[in-house]
Amino acid sequence: MEGGEEDVRVGADRYGEGQPIGTAAQTQDGKDYAEPPPAPLFKPGELSSWSFYRAGIAEFVASFLFLYITILTVMGVAKSGTKCSTVGVLGIAWAFGGMIFALVYCTAGISGGHINPAVTFGMLLARKLTLTRAVFYMIMQCLGAICGAAVVKSFQKSSYEILGGGANTVSTGYGKGAGLGAEILGTFVLVYTVFSATDAKRNARDSHVPILAPLPIGFAVFLVHLATIPITGTGINPARSLGAALIYNKEQAWDDHWIFWVGPFIGAALAALYQQIVIRAIPFKSK
Amino acid sequence: MEGGEEDVRVGADRYGEGQPIGTAAQTQDGKDYAEPPPAPLFKPGELSSWSFYRAGIAEFVASFLFLYITILTVMGVAKSGTKCSTVGVLGIAWAFGGMIFALVYCTAGISGGHINPAVTFGMLLARKLTLTRAVFYMIMQCLGAICGAAVVKSFQKSSYEILGGGANTVSTGYGKGAGLGAEILGTFVLVYTVFSATDAKRNARDSHVPILAPLPIGFAVFLVHLATIPITGTGINPARSLGAALIYNKEQAWDDHWIFWVGPFIGAALAALYQQIVIRAIPFKSK
Amino acid sequence: MEGGEEDVRVGADRYGEGQPIGTAAQTQDGKDYAEPPPAPLFKPGELSSWSFYRAGIAEFVASFLFLYITILTVMGVAKSGTKCSTVGVLGIAWAFGGMIFALVYCTAGISGGHINPAVTFGMLLARKLTLTRAVFYMIMQCLGAICGAAVVKSFQKSSYEILGGGANTVSTGYGKGAGLGAEILGTFVLVYTVFSATDAKRNARDSHVPILAPLPIGFAVFLVHLATIPITGTGINPARSLGAALIYNKEQAWDDHWIFWVGPFIGAALAALYQQIVIRAIPFKSK
Amino acid sequence: MEGGEEDVRVGADRYGEGQPIGTAAQTQDGKDYAEPPPAPLFKPGELSSWSFYRAGIAEFVASFLFLYITILTVMGVAKSGTKCSTVGVLGIAWAFGGMIFALVYCTAGISGGHINPAVTFGMLLARKLTLTRAVFYMIMQCLGAICGAAVVKSFQKSSYEILGGGANTVSTGYGKGAGLGAEILGTFVLVYTVFSATDAKRNARDSHVPILAPLPIGFAVFLVHLATIPITGTGINPARSLGAALIYNKEQAWDDHWIFWVGPFIGAALAALYQQIVIRAIPFKSK
Repeated sequence: MEGGEEDVRVGADRYGEGQPIGTAAQTQDGKDYAEPPPAPLFKPGELSSWSFYRAGIAEFVASFLFLYITILTVMGVAKSGTKCSTVGVLGIAWAFGGMIFALVYCTAGISGGHINPAVTFGMLLARKLTLTRAVFYMIMQCLGAICGAAVVKSFQKSSYEILGGGANTVSTGYGKGAGLGAEILGTFVLVYTVFSATDAKRNARDSHVPILAPLPIGFAVFLVHLATIPITGTGINPARSLGAALIYNKEQAWDDHWIFWVGPFIGAALAALYQQIVIRAIPFKSK
Repeated sequence: MEGGEEDVRVGADRYGEGQPIGTAAQTQDGKDYAEPPPAPLFKPGELSSWSFYRAGIAEFVASFLFLYITILTVMGVAKSGTKCSTVGVLGIAWAFGGMIFALVYCTAGISGGHINPAVTFGMLLARKLTLTRAVFYMIMQCLGAICGAAVVKSFQKSSYEILGGGANTVSTGYGKGAGLGAEILGTFVLVYTVFSATDAKRNARDSHVPILAPLPIGFAVFLVHLATIPITGTGINPARSLGAALIYNKEQAWDDHWIFWVGPFIGAALAALYQQIVIRAIPFKSK
Repeated sequence: MEGGEEDVRVGADRYGEGQPIGTAAQTQDGKDYAEPPPAPLFKPGELSSWSFYRAGIAEFVASFLFLYITILTVMGVAKSGTKCSTVGVLGIAWAFGGMIFALVYCTAGISGGHINPAVTFGMLLARKLTLTRAVFYMIMQCLGAICGAAVVKSFQKSSYEILGGGANTVSTGYGKGAGLGAEILGTFVLVYTVFSATDAKRNARDSHVPILAPLPIGFAVFLVHLATIPITGTGINPARSLGAALIYNKEQAWDDHWIFWVGPFIGAALAALYQQIVIRAIPFKSK
Repeated sequence: MEGGEEDVRVGADRYGEGQPIGTAAQTQDGKDYAEPPPAPLFKPGELSSWSFYRAGIAEFVASFLFLYITILTVMGVAKSGTKCSTVGVLGIAWAFGGMIFALVYCTAGISGGHINPAVTFGMLLARKLTLTRAVFYMIMQCLGAICGAAVVKSFQKSSYEILGGGANTVSTGYGKGAGLGAEILGTFVLVYTVFSATDAKRNARDSHVPILAPLPIGFAVFLVHLATIPITGTGINPARSLGAALIYNKEQAWDDHWIFWVGPFIGAALAALYQQIVIRAIPFKSK
């Protein structure tokens, strides 16, 4: 069974000298990284460790700050008649992507830095954390997001409701299918980047620079916002969509709300499949 | 007492293999980082070392350059009738965040790279520097900020006063409460990022890339500006607010001025509390 | 022959202490990096390894996501009457550059992260990969690009055709010569950066931070877009130009299409020449 | 004399545990870095090494690409009636800063990555390279800049002259003093960042990440452009100003031209003084 894995990996290494971009594999010997074993669904004792609850609090605080900064940026742009005197839609995209960069940087060592139920779902499918932890994270993320949007509303009640409260809806001119597709592909880009950044093989090679992973992850969020703000306002994060919808709480925000749960979860599942089957070729290994 | 700390930390490590983002703890053995002892309030001999004064000069120069570049950018945008022919509000946000990135990079090895009395206050609360040094830094930061704003005014006296001089005030349409809340939460985001970047545990793991800390810190400043420029012009740095207000020196800048000292100091204190109590769990350790 | 190479390299090292920017050579001893031997044109067994096909799939998926995000961003900007309520042309430039950053980061360890036939062509000229692999990559890149543009069209069929579909053409007011020159120089900037990032000498020195190469490569793409979007819409990637042209499929997109193949290939060849002759001085080595 | 230096440095180290930002000194032992000896003014044999000429060619090519991309971006923005349909002034600032980031990254290992006579001048004052090399670099930088601007003009002759050709002049509404001051302070920010990034002490600590220096240097250029484009169009690089002025070649570009040589050279000299006297405290060391 070890041989089966060797087979796949050695094939990659034989190509070693032909890999032109900087991250060529630096391993000549057989096997220098340990694939961590899949996390069990339930781990006895997890619920009695302080680090479990600390991780949940960190996810709550990060989701709170994420919604607070991003929805406040959205409202600032929406409020102004001429978009030229605001940070504009480009500034909104930077707010979402930049916050994910900063918050993943801050919380990665505490909770893994998910801040997004779709990321947690993808990680669960790849068996990177227990089911208990995944459910706990998702709840804390949603609670944090709701509180963050509530603080923004408390700053400016009337205009908040007039201006849409940053809630995700499918824009006029696009069908539900386009909205769902945009959410699926957008979340795929994000979760694919997360998997690439956390690949065990990469970690073995790049162990000195784990700190760098948040930058491409934040950029992925920024890029998806550049492309899909005109279509759905860009969800790719069910906690963000739920928080904004619940505080805005008007019918138009709830009508399309399912898209911002189904789309991200499908996208995350596809990214997990792509990582496990194509990149790691796990089903083809004899083990 | 060692056992008490082990208890908390080992709980974190047991989760090791489940941490999906790149910065998973790389320590399997018991304890590989040394929590530095809290700095005393007064350290004999500190006042007679050249490095103490050099650090103060570095804080002065950095605060000077910070105000010079940022207020000049603000004035360039304010001066033009159509914001489209300027760098816009997005450019202002980049100027503040980018300068903090560049200046923290330049001064981190000399003074620790605070460039902000709120950061110095947070670090003092976490006992990372002496009271003497903290007071000295704050004075030098304020002096530098005043000089920086003065140079900008000397370039264009008349328009400087007409256009508000980059001073922080609560915008019409927002209450004092919203302004204070925005300053508290904005400074929390900044100081939380600073603490995350300087965590002793992280330093132990990432000792090869300390240089990277300035990037998320600069981004945190950029992001808070994206969100709160429409509310207060964004202070989150009492030296910046004082420098701009003193050189502008009109009543409207002084009326709200307390907000830009009280808000950042509360935000920094909350971030210090969060770091010490939730993240490091220091009160729960037997020591 | 070894001596010949020493001669050139030692000359560079003797300058060591005079090199002011951070990346001064850190090697005092004779020779600490191994110039990989040129890849053969055909390598027996390559076609029977899984990693070969996996690399092709990764190039397909990356090219697909590249066109999907970038063309969708272009369409979002084109659709709106006032550019101020969109991410603007600056957002388009970020979309192209940022996607290359994120995708090179994600695929570098799998396929080398080309995502561009011109990069593959330059690497082939420098003998960094086999001819078989180069042709396979180019085909997969073009297929991925076509699929990516097709998905964007499926979201909004009518407006896609009215608004140009993100296809590359030489703008009115510029001659074919200017368009060709812009493509040649733009691709030179990109491929020159790729060569700099993958230089064997640099890899030996910077082996701990291979992860950083994608950032300057992404920036190179961003910068070329800033400069040449007004001239040609910026190709510098034949797969991107082909995908957009084929899905748009109107005469005006095909008339100039040769420019977006000939220009990038000439630019890549010039960058390969510059790297091999001036930077590495390979013809002047006795070997 | 060794004692003298110890005195200063140990003072810095005693502060070690109080330095809050990530880059706290990691050295407990006496002396782990070697201050390179000052470069002689003339070095026999330098003129007969290939690496000397290769460095000059690299400076030429980098200056050529720098002017080509940046002036083309400036012309693209100038040409359009509404700035909103271009990358805008913010895009111009990114073009200048981003090109410096990418080009310093590419050429740092070959020539030290100056691409700017003011940087070369500052490095000469700090005795980091020979006078021969400094003069050779400056000539190659100016020649490269002239060629780069010439290519941009060849793309669009008539509009190039109407729209100012990206030449630096002091804007109406600002005095010559403000223009000179802006150039001095702007160049100080740049050269101060370059010195910080290349400090021998930092290099000793951060030897694993020399590659990161280009990022803050590029950001410094970006930030100065944000602030001073409205005043002078931002020079801080005499080669860039000369290239644009010579190809534009109208009286208004030559009238203020001295400012863009005197300003940057004064700014670079001040940065060199600050680094040598305050940061390194070289005059106070007994040696």
